[in-house]
Amino acid sequence: MAVIKLWYSPGACSLASQILLKETGVDYEAAMVDIGHGTPEEFRTINPKLRIPVLSIDGQVITESPAILTAISQFSPEKHLMGKTNLEIVRTYEWLNWLSGTLHAQAFGGFIRPHRFSDDPSTHELIRAKSLKTIRECYDKIDQDLSSVHAVGDSFTAVDAYLYVFYRWGEHHGMGMKKYPKYTNLVVELVKRQSVQEALDMEGVLYYVPR
Amino acid sequence: MAVIKLWYSPGACSLASQILLKETGVDYEAAMVDIGHGTPEEFRTINPKLRIPVLSIDGQVITESPAILTAISQFSPEKHLMGKTNLEIVRTYEWLNWLSGTLHAQAFGGFIRPHRFSDDPSTHELIRAKSLKTIRECYDKIDQDLSSVHAVGDSFTAVDAYLYVFYRWGEHHGMGMKKYPKYTNLVVELVKRQSVQEALDMEGVLYYVPR
Repeated sequence: MAVIKLWYSPGACSLASQILLKETGVDYEAAMVDIGHGTPEEFRTINPKLRIPVLSIDGQVITESPAILTAISQFSPEKHLMGKTNLEIVRTYEWLNWLSGTLHAQAFGGFIRPHRFSDDPSTHELIRAKSLKTIRECYDKIDQDLSSVHAVGDSFTAVDAYLYVFYRWGEHHGMGMKKYPKYTNLVVELVKRQSVQEALDMEGVLYYVPR
Repeated sequence: MAVIKLWYSPGACSLASQILLKETGVDYEAAMVDIGHGTPEEFRTINPKLRIPVLSIDGQVITESPAILTAISQFSPEKHLMGKTNLEIVRTYEWLNWLSGTLHAQAFGGFIRPHRFSDDPSTHELIRAKSLKTIRECYDKIDQDLSSVHAVGDSFTAVDAYLYVFYRWGEHHGMGMKKYPKYTNLVVELVKRQSVQEALDMEGVLYYVPR
């Protein structure tokens, strides 16, 4: 049995990795990192990028959510957590990269951590305002693009778990996510999964939709 | 035979997809898009995100470089363009996501297109300055992390092609890339590949290292 460890912060984007680990049923250690005031400097010895999630498998340290989700999916290939067909696999990486690069790094990055984009605090409110606009455009696009309660194919993939992360952030920041009906439907169905309930209860965070 | 079409712009990040297509040897149509003044509005009908590259396979439109590279690799599974082993595949997605999200979307996004982060032009120089700092940190990290002329495993993967994109951008913007010895070595070896020469010659762009 591999020795598996996930570094996470409650409700952060590491939640998707936590859900996927619960989905596979593998044994793993979950190590909480408090990133409330930025990722602590001592975490640099684990991940020099100072970001979570981090997954280690028998000492191999893996960073970047799409890579970590890929690694977790390899524990249970029969569950097709990254999609079943070649095209589904491509769609999964298309969603993950856009959510990670555009919605998270660009939009939420500017909204939550404007200092990543300018050292001058007087610019930060303008960066936050523009980033909020980008976040809303992304939410519009998500709601428009979804055609069922699963983002890819007709069953659960890592994308559904990752989408939930940003739905929760929207609610947390008072962005009124219920106005996105298809996105909300996906989340309402998602929280019925045992893996999702186990992950959220373990992290001690809100569901934001009826359980 | 599938009908394959790539929308690209010379020297843009679509170059990695162009190289990978040449590597597989499949027949495809290359459609040039001029993004010199931003992606043209009429391109929205092809990709509502207004970004290149875009790949279509028998009418299925695929966006986001890591997804497009995945789709291209599926044409020649025996070449393992996304890595050979499970761990190599994970490392490939780790590199691609970081290059796409941190170096491209966050750092080069702010440097080349600061208006994505603030509507107020008076903030743009500050955003460009901070983004340039992030770009240099990324280049330092790349040079530090490389251990051979291939980023993943002991043979060519999509990551090598993607890394070349950002090396070329650094040279194009006068960032003095020769000061990164391992990164330069990778590129020097890379341009010996026929696929790379075909892609660059077709796009009509500079090599920036001896051929």
